[in-house]
Amino acid sequence: MLKLDFHPAGRHFLQIPGPSPVPDRILRAMSYPTIDHRGPEFGALGLQVLSGIKKIFKTQHPVVIYPASGTGAWEAALSNTLSPGDTVLMYETGHFATLWKKMAEKLDLKPEFLGLPGIEGWRRGVDAERIEARLRADTAHTIKAVCVVHNETSTGVTSNIAAVRQAIDAAGHPALLLVDTISGLASADYRHDEWGVDVTVSGSQKGLMLPPGISFNAISPKAIEASQTAKLPRSFWDWTEIVEMNKTGYWPYTPNTNLLYGLAESIEMILGEGLDNVFARHQRLAEACRRAVRAWGLEIQCADPAVYSPVLTGVMTPEGIDADAVRKTIYDRFDMSLGTGLGKLKGRMFRIGHLGDCNDLTLMATLAGCEMGLKLAGVPLAASGVGEAMAFLASQAKANTLKAAA
Amino acid sequence: MLKLDFHPAGRHFLQIPGPSPVPDRILRAMSYPTIDHRGPEFGALGLQVLSGIKKIFKTQHPVVIYPASGTGAWEAALSNTLSPGDTVLMYETGHFATLWKKMAEKLDLKPEFLGLPGIEGWRRGVDAERIEARLRADTAHTIKAVCVVHNETSTGVTSNIAAVRQAIDAAGHPALLLVDTISGLASADYRHDEWGVDVTVSGSQKGLMLPPGISFNAISPKAIEASQTAKLPRSFWDWTEIVEMNKTGYWPYTPNTNLLYGLAESIEMILGEGLDNVFARHQRLAEACRRAVRAWGLEIQCADPAVYSPVLTGVMTPEGIDADAVRKTIYDRFDMSLGTGLGKLKGRMFRIGHLGDCNDLTLMATLAGCEMGLKLAGVPLAASGVGEAMAFLASQAKANTLKAAA
Amino acid sequence: MLKLDFHPAGRHFLQIPGPSPVPDRILRAMSYPTIDHRGPEFGALGLQVLSGIKKIFKTQHPVVIYPASGTGAWEAALSNTLSPGDTVLMYETGHFATLWKKMAEKLDLKPEFLGLPGIEGWRRGVDAERIEARLRADTAHTIKAVCVVHNETSTGVTSNIAAVRQAIDAAGHPALLLVDTISGLASADYRHDEWGVDVTVSGSQKGLMLPPGISFNAISPKAIEASQTAKLPRSFWDWTEIVEMNKTGYWPYTPNTNLLYGLAESIEMILGEGLDNVFARHQRLAEACRRAVRAWGLEIQCADPAVYSPVLTGVMTPEGIDADAVRKTIYDRFDMSLGTGLGKLKGRMFRIGHLGDCNDLTLMATLAGCEMGLKLAGVPLAASGVGEAMAFLASQAKANTLKAAA
Amino acid sequence: MLKLDFHPAGRHFLQIPGPSPVPDRILRAMSYPTIDHRGPEFGALGLQVLSGIKKIFKTQHPVVIYPASGTGAWEAALSNTLSPGDTVLMYETGHFATLWKKMAEKLDLKPEFLGLPGIEGWRRGVDAERIEARLRADTAHTIKAVCVVHNETSTGVTSNIAAVRQAIDAAGHPALLLVDTISGLASADYRHDEWGVDVTVSGSQKGLMLPPGISFNAISPKAIEASQTAKLPRSFWDWTEIVEMNKTGYWPYTPNTNLLYGLAESIEMILGEGLDNVFARHQRLAEACRRAVRAWGLEIQCADPAVYSPVLTGVMTPEGIDADAVRKTIYDRFDMSLGTGLGKLKGRMFRIGHLGDCNDLTLMATLAGCEMGLKLAGVPLAASGVGEAMAFLASQAKANTLKAAA
Repeated sequence: MLKLDFHPAGRHFLQIPGPSPVPDRILRAMSYPTIDHRGPEFGALGLQVLSGIKKIFKTQHPVVIYPASGTGAWEAALSNTLSPGDTVLMYETGHFATLWKKMAEKLDLKPEFLGLPGIEGWRRGVDAERIEARLRADTAHTIKAVCVVHNETSTGVTSNIAAVRQAIDAAGHPALLLVDTISGLASADYRHDEWGVDVTVSGSQKGLMLPPGISFNAISPKAIEASQTAKLPRSFWDWTEIVEMNKTGYWPYTPNTNLLYGLAESIEMILGEGLDNVFARHQRLAEACRRAVRAWGLEIQCADPAVYSPVLTGVMTPEGIDADAVRKTIYDRFDMSLGTGLGKLKGRMFRIGHLGDCNDLTLMATLAGCEMGLKLAGVPLAASGVGEAMAFLASQAKANTLKAAA
Repeated sequence: MLKLDFHPAGRHFLQIPGPSPVPDRILRAMSYPTIDHRGPEFGALGLQVLSGIKKIFKTQHPVVIYPASGTGAWEAALSNTLSPGDTVLMYETGHFATLWKKMAEKLDLKPEFLGLPGIEGWRRGVDAERIEARLRADTAHTIKAVCVVHNETSTGVTSNIAAVRQAIDAAGHPALLLVDTISGLASADYRHDEWGVDVTVSGSQKGLMLPPGISFNAISPKAIEASQTAKLPRSFWDWTEIVEMNKTGYWPYTPNTNLLYGLAESIEMILGEGLDNVFARHQRLAEACRRAVRAWGLEIQCADPAVYSPVLTGVMTPEGIDADAVRKTIYDRFDMSLGTGLGKLKGRMFRIGHLGDCNDLTLMATLAGCEMGLKLAGVPLAASGVGEAMAFLASQAKANTLKAAA
Repeated sequence: MLKLDFHPAGRHFLQIPGPSPVPDRILRAMSYPTIDHRGPEFGALGLQVLSGIKKIFKTQHPVVIYPASGTGAWEAALSNTLSPGDTVLMYETGHFATLWKKMAEKLDLKPEFLGLPGIEGWRRGVDAERIEARLRADTAHTIKAVCVVHNETSTGVTSNIAAVRQAIDAAGHPALLLVDTISGLASADYRHDEWGVDVTVSGSQKGLMLPPGISFNAISPKAIEASQTAKLPRSFWDWTEIVEMNKTGYWPYTPNTNLLYGLAESIEMILGEGLDNVFARHQRLAEACRRAVRAWGLEIQCADPAVYSPVLTGVMTPEGIDADAVRKTIYDRFDMSLGTGLGKLKGRMFRIGHLGDCNDLTLMATLAGCEMGLKLAGVPLAASGVGEAMAFLASQAKANTLKAAA
Repeated sequence: MLKLDFHPAGRHFLQIPGPSPVPDRILRAMSYPTIDHRGPEFGALGLQVLSGIKKIFKTQHPVVIYPASGTGAWEAALSNTLSPGDTVLMYETGHFATLWKKMAEKLDLKPEFLGLPGIEGWRRGVDAERIEARLRADTAHTIKAVCVVHNETSTGVTSNIAAVRQAIDAAGHPALLLVDTISGLASADYRHDEWGVDVTVSGSQKGLMLPPGISFNAISPKAIEASQTAKLPRSFWDWTEIVEMNKTGYWPYTPNTNLLYGLAESIEMILGEGLDNVFARHQRLAEACRRAVRAWGLEIQCADPAVYSPVLTGVMTPEGIDADAVRKTIYDRFDMSLGTGLGKLKGRMFRIGHLGDCNDLTLMATLAGCEMGLKLAGVPLAASGVGEAMAFLASQAKANTLKAAA
């Protein structure tokens, strides 16, 4: 038997910005018996999830599902659409944007990295005007793709993707638009078709509430067209055969069946609640969380209220306070996991995840754990964030309605 | 597929004083395949749980495990030790003591019901002196048993059982001592042998953290002796054959195998944490809860601090406030279940369960839900109970240590 | 972690006549979170199972569900309808009929036990003519109830209950008809109302495919009327309060929630397949099993083909062969559990269960294990029973149709 | 709720050569709550599985675990060790060898494909002498790697990898040896270090008894050295960072936590049974299966007894019989999935999987289903294969011993 149950009595609070807690419904669905991936049930399962996931991405076009975690879908987006030596315009919004850029380099692409110096760019969203300006300057159209992160998991900033689309159009530039919404999908509003995204990259372990292990490329007709001439070598990630076989609900190689069971359940849960209700719930919890942070007198990592993330909130600790020491205190004393500061923000902030299967009381537990832990760690607090959050949540109209059935 | 998933997104908070939330470890154990109840594995399982449960009851003598819920174990305690027409001295501590008395009447016993008038007796524990006085007066020894409830689930009062034992001894009376600790076992300190209890009745769905469906009679040699002459007709509940077959780990009729799997896991979890640590955790959470109630300016149902329950806290609502309306608001708005006022207390109080698989942050979520709900229901609150509870919990020494393994 | 996984690699074959293997669907349903037994979801669950179970019993009248295993429901049937000293006519069909008679004695009833001497009665069903004759002779109507076992789990005989009803009517006798179909329900055709049964006793761990822990009394209006004057002391088993509270989906005491989840799933599975399809499947598997036994040259325990059980088949071993040694060989070598010979049949037969979640290939595995084990145990076999069973099963019309959905 | 439960009553028999049935123990392990992939428990989990998996591969060197299905690990093996335009010597043993070759082409490698014409090469193992001859001829050492499939899932042939190693050594050729044992690992004996393999590719859904979704590269020091100069672009598959971070039990990107839980359990099950016992069990079941096929008078796909696979058996149907029609009959009538003929063998054979969590009676059920299905499909059978298999299995020494604990 697995010796991994480290936790003391009671339920551990996993409040990192993903992997998010997997609901029991999904864990149960994942325990269905594995079936023949070439048999008739599998075809039905395949068609069900392929159709359902389109509604989540808000697209009419194919969504490729990879039996691989999210980083792989980043690679798939690049390798299906680009050729060695291609210039790509990427935007530094934080740690994950930086990692995607490093990947582009490893794949023999030439990323150009826009952004502000220091950590300033890590506190704001994508500046579409800068993208437009750069594209206008690229009269030779050497830039083949614009790559941006929709929801920066390392900072708690949700950039305006529609504005990026408008920037590209305004510049009259033919570059593809590739967007990473690994941590945004099914938590923050996202519209693949309406926003004219060519490839949207996402993963399973955030708003979809699944364990890690599945990732996605939602692809536009323009992206498919680009893939026909793109020369980066690819096989596992290649869209062509997958899209073809997906028409009957199958995959060219073994898909990860049990995570697809979970995905089917996830889609049913999300569409059952209603995407708009899901987004509103995330907005409500995020606002409650930010009010708590402000009450404590601490700074929110995201410096621009227009792009606050509904998925997570980055909390900056005062000078002299190691954010990871605060996290450790909270972990040790209150059995809660919070997100660490990544990259440039190491030790300077921690991240509170309020995504996926989260509700008002889970957030209150989370904020109470933070408030107690901050005090124990010696952080001076201006007032009770917990009190502020309660006042806000109680003031909201009844947001959750009991489901008639599932 | 079962259409019973009524809840909105996120985890429901089940904070009634039992059934308490069943930990995933136990649910997983309960999903082991059902085995032959006459085969070799079953014998090993039987011996394991029969030996382990003795440690929980703190007894060297047999503990009978019934494949039936707790009410059945009440009947078993009476029918194995008494004869039609026997007088039993029972003590009114609340709703469950009253129900046990009604059962005694239905079984052709003559219960004599000690207690205070109105709801006064429902706010205090057993008065051992009154029992002693009554027994001294019973010079003919017509009273065959004294029946008391250790932890009154309807009120949040944990009576002093050792004092009752002393009262009986002081009176020099031969009556048996039958104790119901259905909601106390494995949450509040309990010592079957040391306290000289003859039959202890308990159930699975409280401190043992199992679903309902298993119940217990821990029995003293004196109780066994009494059973040999007791004349109440009995078959299913009869100890004799069960105790005999239990010696090899089996039962005379089909036991509920999958709940026994859960029981084995529960025992391992509890003894792994350590009974004293379990009790200390319950005391800490209960104290935090009471501090919150006092901060709100509300009255704790239990009027005697010496017998506060570590399992649950009864909260009285002010005149004119229907406690069930408060509960409904909390249920509708914050997806949390609290215990209703039972019997004489209907509408006048609600009950907060903080037993079993509960920890600091779960309690904080619970108190936040109560505080928001009370305000929404129009109950004037003196101060933030949540704040008081946080101050107390943060002040405690690190109570939970991470487990090395399970 | 539970240390109970004794089995070698691969799936254990649990082919005893109950507890039968619990399907994964039911285990998953049982792992739903425990809910407030006084809350709104619970009421919905209660109404759903109380309504559904009536269809399984084929009754319009109440079915009482006990949070207790099947033996308890035997006691409930007797104690709700009878008074101390009442004479009951019981019929010896095997070990379980004998145990029920012993229970009647312990409950201060006067059972009169009809039947054939030695093991002859254990190879045949109830002889309704003998019951009629006995009732005709009882002109004073001292007999208050006739108690028969529908499907004798110890022998593999399914008695004709309609004939018993006719016998009582023909005799013009007012006795109640109490029937145990613990192992018959949902495997063999059963019609509570049509057959005029007053109390039908059943349990969860056989045709309903649940773990043990739930049991049933289906009750006629005449039985309810009898309960109003019946004087056996009872409380836990008392129908009155349960039937009353069941009207809104609740119970007067804590029901075993998680087994009720399983019951809801079980009912959905059975009604989804269709009761008639379920019965036909059991008949097909039973016939295949009997053909195998005959091919081996062994004797089927049931000596009357008119009452062969569709649930299990008793196999008699030749003189000098200890049936339990055969069972042990099969268990050790092929990881399969078979039923032991009970009571008078100890060592002389073993029982093959083919009930519940069983299909053609599971039966073939079972018969192959028996055939290999019998040979290894030195039992001379006339021919391959496995071959006969295959020939029969292959000759059957396609019996299982794939479900469209569940 | 997921609408995917297509199967009729009873358990579906999944007897394809992978994905193999996932044991309940592993499904339960996979339902552990998802944890922080940067937290302390995760590190312990990571170290546990990374250390355990080495024992399964029989290597002292790193094993890279990818959160991706097996096809990805093929790509990883190539892209970490080779450069665009490199010649690789591959050997046509069947469908999967052919697919791997196609992948090499897509990755800009130049595969040279050795093998026999028609389906002859699909009935035999790798001919090491041919490899040696080809390498001897390659005096310029343009061949950079030799790629062979250890257990060809499409045919049921297990090639001799030690012989391939000897061939390379005999030729004095520096080519790397890359081996696919996706379907062989933990079912057929495999020795990464002893056999001098440079990269071993494997997956989760075969002998490891997990759902698909995890794959492996076991890598030699020589392979690591090669990776430092290999120029195929790679990021997700790149070993360097993974091997570095694995030292503390972590991954550079999100690993699929819940499948790693399953892997930890799988390793414990396999090492608990003992690798040699696991291999012997597979050999016993495979031999029983082949005896059945021969008794039926049908041809085994593998034409060379020296390389029979212990994992699966390919069964050729007589001229004029569509193997897929036979499979459909068996699926429809007996609820069993068998493997289809792939590539050149489409319609000419079916495959029986007897790997992973399989035991004697499961195999007997499988063979009975095949025998009945073949007859129903009009295939003339010489004798009962089921009878032959029973005779063989009964003749074997007791192979499975009950486990003392788990």
